[in-house]
Amino acid sequence: MTEKPRKATASTQSMMRIFTVPEAPESTLSKIEHALSEDLAGFLTQSIVALEKPLGEIEKDFQAYDIPMEPTFVSDYTEEMMQNLVAHSVHTAAPSFIGHMTSAMPYFVLPLSKVMVGLNQNLVKIETSKAFTPLERQVLGMMHHLVFGNEASFYDRWMHSADHSLGAFCSGGTIANITALWIARNQLLKADGDFPGVTSAGLMAALRHYGWQDLAILVSERGHYSLGKAADLLGIGRQNIVSIPTDANNKVDVAKMRAEAERLTAAGIRVMAIVGVAGTTETGNIDPLPQLADLAAEFQCHFHVDGAWGGASLMSSKYRYLLDGIERADSVTIDAHKQLYVPMGAGMVLFRDPKLARAIVHHAEYILRRGSKDLGSQTLEGSRPGMAMLVHACLNIIGRHGYEILINNSLEKARFFAGLIKADPDFELISEPELCLLTYRYVPQQVQQALSAAIAANDWKKVNCINGLLNELTQVVQKTQREQGISFVSRTRLQPARYQRQTVTVFRVVLANPLTTEQILKDVLAEEQLLASQQHGLLMKLQAACE
Amino acid sequence: MTEKPRKATASTQSMMRIFTVPEAPESTLSKIEHALSEDLAGFLTQSIVALEKPLGEIEKDFQAYDIPMEPTFVSDYTEEMMQNLVAHSVHTAAPSFIGHMTSAMPYFVLPLSKVMVGLNQNLVKIETSKAFTPLERQVLGMMHHLVFGNEASFYDRWMHSADHSLGAFCSGGTIANITALWIARNQLLKADGDFPGVTSAGLMAALRHYGWQDLAILVSERGHYSLGKAADLLGIGRQNIVSIPTDANNKVDVAKMRAEAERLTAAGIRVMAIVGVAGTTETGNIDPLPQLADLAAEFQCHFHVDGAWGGASLMSSKYRYLLDGIERADSVTIDAHKQLYVPMGAGMVLFRDPKLARAIVHHAEYILRRGSKDLGSQTLEGSRPGMAMLVHACLNIIGRHGYEILINNSLEKARFFAGLIKADPDFELISEPELCLLTYRYVPQQVQQALSAAIAANDWKKVNCINGLLNELTQVVQKTQREQGISFVSRTRLQPARYQRQTVTVFRVVLANPLTTEQILKDVLAEEQLLASQQHGLLMKLQAACE
Repeated sequence: MTEKPRKATASTQSMMRIFTVPEAPESTLSKIEHALSEDLAGFLTQSIVALEKPLGEIEKDFQAYDIPMEPTFVSDYTEEMMQNLVAHSVHTAAPSFIGHMTSAMPYFVLPLSKVMVGLNQNLVKIETSKAFTPLERQVLGMMHHLVFGNEASFYDRWMHSADHSLGAFCSGGTIANITALWIARNQLLKADGDFPGVTSAGLMAALRHYGWQDLAILVSERGHYSLGKAADLLGIGRQNIVSIPTDANNKVDVAKMRAEAERLTAAGIRVMAIVGVAGTTETGNIDPLPQLADLAAEFQCHFHVDGAWGGASLMSSKYRYLLDGIERADSVTIDAHKQLYVPMGAGMVLFRDPKLARAIVHHAEYILRRGSKDLGSQTLEGSRPGMAMLVHACLNIIGRHGYEILINNSLEKARFFAGLIKADPDFELISEPELCLLTYRYVPQQVQQALSAAIAANDWKKVNCINGLLNELTQVVQKTQREQGISFVSRTRLQPARYQRQTVTVFRVVLANPLTTEQILKDVLAEEQLLASQQHGLLMKLQAACE
Repeated sequence: MTEKPRKATASTQSMMRIFTVPEAPESTLSKIEHALSEDLAGFLTQSIVALEKPLGEIEKDFQAYDIPMEPTFVSDYTEEMMQNLVAHSVHTAAPSFIGHMTSAMPYFVLPLSKVMVGLNQNLVKIETSKAFTPLERQVLGMMHHLVFGNEASFYDRWMHSADHSLGAFCSGGTIANITALWIARNQLLKADGDFPGVTSAGLMAALRHYGWQDLAILVSERGHYSLGKAADLLGIGRQNIVSIPTDANNKVDVAKMRAEAERLTAAGIRVMAIVGVAGTTETGNIDPLPQLADLAAEFQCHFHVDGAWGGASLMSSKYRYLLDGIERADSVTIDAHKQLYVPMGAGMVLFRDPKLARAIVHHAEYILRRGSKDLGSQTLEGSRPGMAMLVHACLNIIGRHGYEILINNSLEKARFFAGLIKADPDFELISEPELCLLTYRYVPQQVQQALSAAIAANDWKKVNCINGLLNELTQVVQKTQREQGISFVSRTRLQPARYQRQTVTVFRVVLANPLTTEQILKDVLAEEQLLASQQHGLLMKLQAACE
């Protein structure tokens, strides 16, 4: 019997061993894995420390910049990472952490993700993915059907066709939005006579050929920041993402969008795309999609709907009417890692017309040969993992009726929480939940009365002064609540119509976690009330400002 | 005791259960997971069928386009997927499958990936990743140090600095290459006086401002297809990726690149970037990086090195001289999911100058606030998983010395295989291995003699005729070998100098799997010889062509 040496050493033998000898059942890592399988929620609660450590402190454990010369034993490494990394990660699945767009996950995705990683397929080409390719195409077909609801013959014909795509799978909504706008640009500036198209000749030559000064993308001021990134990347320029004001319900003002489209067109700037937001990340509202579809038809431009977060609500037959008009989009973004309960890294863009992705098709010599069914010929990413398997599993194991229950519960829980907030004289609901997202803030009753009086008296200076102090209060309460680690709401800044678009800092919650109970919601408010009451200095300033 | 119903039903209770009740140890999925943990290689070998099923047959199991109404039991779903999906996936880890860039993985990445999925962090912002953010920055720092080898003070100062990035983590090499060229474009067309920069104003306005007709990117004809995709996406245009011929060793001809750069500059086209390939995907060769660095300095353009596959060879102190000059690059792409043995979905681009990524920096209201350490403000992707954790694990557990052994073994195994091929009179080595990739083909001895004679006699028509038949033979042997499922080599097409750049189809192998033995390599050649000998028709035509 040899004793375990204190230091690991590198030898051909020891290196072969890590590729051939699995973890022994009594090893540290095996025990952790076992604990994870037995009770994920318990594991996370026990392993992640509640009280937040400052980032500067955490960073101290990640200072070494040189790759260690000698190997480390798996058990030693694992113990270190449990302390330095896992303990200081974020408990995104906690039922009281209602500020995240990610939530608890179904148990079966954990073992299935291990199967996925073990198979290590690369979806870029059939040669490294085989059955994963038709599986991914089926997932895209199912999601396409959920959005567009075409007939059986449509899916029979196009779902597995080599030269067609019902969508593109990707790592997340940002890549999905970029893909949609890339297609829109290339479709608009396509080959024409001797002109080989923007794909080949570039944007400068394309604009010259078509005689336009510039391209523009119209979207609500609540559009996701990834659209600006797309405009930058595609050479369109961030200033050509034209931001259109929203109404009191955070929905884009279509009349203002039409006026802007007319102004741009008259100036020789071609409206390339109109983007409808189906669930803004800040307030959860949905743009008037049918009117946007009409406008896109009128200006003959691409109509993209960003339903990265809200698109999953189509699963609810009770509430899907909220997204009416989405079926008229040319392309739709939906993230599976948000309300479809799939782990991080699963985004999709769906195309109404299966020929749309031809605008970005590309081939290569040893890969993505013409006529092949390689998915990589019509995606922005190259090599990528078989995440579609986890979406496939969720769609099948949960089913439409299962999602109906989950989504309806989320939406109704948000309405319940909005009711709690409205019933409490010390809170102000800032945006009503249309899906399962809402915003609010803590405003003591007498401050609310002072605010109303100041508004009635048109004393906007006073309103501004009070709101400034409330913003400070909201910020400190949110930060302290997060640091204490019992519950978590996120925060953002809005410009509500009621306050003449003065900037207001708000709490933002997303009620997608099936494990969040009504009691937890009551506790979240009580904790905020308590934390606010401890801000004596700010409360005194507020009192003074109200007089 | 109630009997298990035959059909799953959706109820609030059953839906809550999938979020709270882990798989029972005796469940199908738990058993599979256990088998996977006990012996990954055995699981894959037993679960994946050897004999290839035609794709059309596989597709039959993925026809349903509607999301099922009712839930499915996890065990029923799992059994179905073991048959329809897992059985017909690709055994990328098999030691005899030497045509893939992915190979066997160390055992510890499986349980660790389960921890990663269970934690479900989102690296876009601190709020959903906390300790994963400094961990990812450390991984980028370690890889930066591997490439650029700066001093301690450099890493102490920049590695965790909010406004700086030593690199960007992403899903793979394609996104890494696009990110590098996006930065190069924005850096070149930066804000200047009243001009707000390409980011804001778009490409047309930027080219007008700077007075250039177009931008160009210079790269070897062996450059990866993702560069064309980047040129398309960035609005530069595929025809402005200028493809430069390579020498007999598949290395870019620097004199020709200089001539091209001069021609473009004279025509008012600005050379935006020079890309050096450090390990071409088709032949594994490395461009003369020091000369390319000189050329980039001369033309004052960005110098990017695509080491997606080959960059990991820097781990070998014995062979890293092959990549000399890489430390002069402005940006370098390296995939961890290739020769660093990390599962699919881990790419990186590293920046010599920590300020470089400012050219693509972006902020938003509720996220990526100015001054925050949110990684998402300087990445192309938005939400993305904590894959950096698996790279961190491999770097620490394997260590420099461990990788040294693995990389050296791979390179030396390739040299051994090249020796086998050269010693066999019926095979022709097409490209010598510089790293661990080589290409070859089966050419019976008398055909080789006839080819040599025809070349000596300058009878290129005859050479062309023979090569055409050999191409058919190579293609059918490769396809049959793959379908039989005992071993796998990939195939590509090259234009070797020896054949006056006639197109030649070749077998391509990547010897990165530590479990591939010398005996397996001998068996692969024997199998190819046997399969070729069964192609009676083609062999007779070849015989006739040689006369």
